[in-house]
Amino acid sequence: MPTLRDVGEIEAIRLLHQAVLGRADVVVGPGDDAAVLRCDASEDLVATTDALVEGRHYLPLWLNPAARGARLAAVNLSDLAAMAARPRWALLSIGARPEHEMDALVEFQRGLETALAKEGATIAGGNLVAVDGEEWWSLTLLGSVARGRAWTRAGARPGDLLALTGHPGRAAAGLALARRAGAPDAVDPKWRPLLEAWLEPRARTAFAQALAPAEAVTAAIDVSDGLAADLAHLCDASGMGCDVDAWSLPEDPLLGRAAGTLGLAVTPLRLGPSDDYELLLAVDPRSRDAAERAARESGTPLAFLGRFTGRRGELALLAVDGARTPLDPRGFDHFAGAR
Amino acid sequence: MPTLRDVGEIEAIRLLHQAVLGRADVVVGPGDDAAVLRCDASEDLVATTDALVEGRHYLPLWLNPAARGARLAAVNLSDLAAMAARPRWALLSIGARPEHEMDALVEFQRGLETALAKEGATIAGGNLVAVDGEEWWSLTLLGSVARGRAWTRAGARPGDLLALTGHPGRAAAGLALARRAGAPDAVDPKWRPLLEAWLEPRARTAFAQALAPAEAVTAAIDVSDGLAADLAHLCDASGMGCDVDAWSLPEDPLLGRAAGTLGLAVTPLRLGPSDDYELLLAVDPRSRDAAERAARESGTPLAFLGRFTGRRGELALLAVDGARTPLDPRGFDHFAGAR
Repeated sequence: MPTLRDVGEIEAIRLLHQAVLGRADVVVGPGDDAAVLRCDASEDLVATTDALVEGRHYLPLWLNPAARGARLAAVNLSDLAAMAARPRWALLSIGARPEHEMDALVEFQRGLETALAKEGATIAGGNLVAVDGEEWWSLTLLGSVARGRAWTRAGARPGDLLALTGHPGRAAAGLALARRAGAPDAVDPKWRPLLEAWLEPRARTAFAQALAPAEAVTAAIDVSDGLAADLAHLCDASGMGCDVDAWSLPEDPLLGRAAGTLGLAVTPLRLGPSDDYELLLAVDPRSRDAAERAARESGTPLAFLGRFTGRRGELALLAVDGARTPLDPRGFDHFAGAR
Repeated sequence: MPTLRDVGEIEAIRLLHQAVLGRADVVVGPGDDAAVLRCDASEDLVATTDALVEGRHYLPLWLNPAARGARLAAVNLSDLAAMAARPRWALLSIGARPEHEMDALVEFQRGLETALAKEGATIAGGNLVAVDGEEWWSLTLLGSVARGRAWTRAGARPGDLLALTGHPGRAAAGLALARRAGAPDAVDPKWRPLLEAWLEPRARTAFAQALAPAEAVTAAIDVSDGLAADLAHLCDASGMGCDVDAWSLPEDPLLGRAAGTLGLAVTPLRLGPSDDYELLLAVDPRSRDAAERAARESGTPLAFLGRFTGRRGELALLAVDGARTPLDPRGFDHFAGAR
């Protein structure tokens, strides 16, 4: 199988980048010094960048190249979903070892392209450099949103509802089950949905696009550091506090069983560090119906977990009996050890 | 000195990213899920990405963190200059070891910011991940250009003039002199301009911006793989050939002396692989004056080296006596060994 070294940089770039066909918003695609893209006058541009590093964000044993590409798409798409942006163009910067097989690189790129295309985006350019150490893949994703209508972390108001998509904690449970099993074949098939949550996260792009026109959302963040940590980020940016009703977290019996098997408590799993790429939203209470409608239309689980308060920085978990416990916002820190 | 590990990811990102102040085109800067940027209705967006890898694109001994940041700016700015784009926004993706000193990271970021700000651009977002192997810095730079007016590699026509900024080959000579000397202190000060060409390339942004309104340029490329290789890329994209007048390369006595000292022939140094980030242009012959005016206004050396021809893919070096030699377009390939 030819490697990057055999193929050479220029030919490798040619193999990786297909012409972008039939898109009026790509004036010049891959192959020139830069890409030329056409924005709409009535829209703002939204830009994010996120990277996958070998051994840290993925383990080759667990994730084939195409699935890695899809994962890189998802982590970036999730950032755009959190801004209500429509995904449009991506630039991929790769650091790969010279002995990397060209076919595997192409497989990664196709996985990325396919996942981006599902949400309407295309790869418009890239860069390829040789590395000796671990490989990395850094994507910049550009999207657009109606002018002045991007969701940010900063707009929540007292009385706004806290809403959550999906089932955070599943990715962390999937990762823990995978570590215990040691190899994909060794994982009991009953945990498959949890493993998928870890390996194949899917951004909430469709839900965000369905909800954006309703102007129901006053603040948003994607859950990548953990529910509690990202709620703290949102509250911090908005200058708010939040009361979370402990009983309102959506039922997740499979996660409960996994927690039992792993000897873990389920609530920390659900609130703590977990790469789920769900959305946390502050919703105007008058627009709750619109949010539920967007969830139904896009097939997205949506739960209302509590209310924002004017008590800046105060995150509390409320029990059914009204007891308040402070919510621990510690998230995952790549540079710190376990705390 | 605190390291990334001491500081932690979230605080590190806060230290690196200053608020973007006083720019109407940055609606949401660093610190949210994505940046929100405002394009002008009359412009196209231009996007490029390029990376620096430790040990491959820079040697810590030769380039302090701020100079590395400036270099990363230059390699990306050069791509936008080659498209006639005005630099506006950047996203920086970093892979750094946990033991990296926080101060050095900030110094890098400030060097990058300063170099971008000189050309009108600002850092609007970024990402930071931990690595164990070599460190890397991947920048995506966004700019804008009047709608439909981006220069590409594809528009050269028979009879168009081949124009070149600056003095390619200087960066390659600087690198060779540095390798020979082994340490910055050991390089004879007389070679300083060559060393600077290698260590501190400056993109031709001002020249490109001065020339863009004249609509004199039919095709453009930045010289990053070497003059001959990049001329071949441009000819390939335009479906043209090119006759280069050997005597028309600008005088460069210092490069000549360096070639002598290094035991190298000067012409291969000037035409071969060299990280100079100059521009190669196809210029409408009726607009030669406009190009020379833009060069004077922006203080840019500009030489006219020959003419494009309809002989697709045929690159020739013409001697004073009219003898034609094929021009060898081999460039630098990161994945191939020396050829």
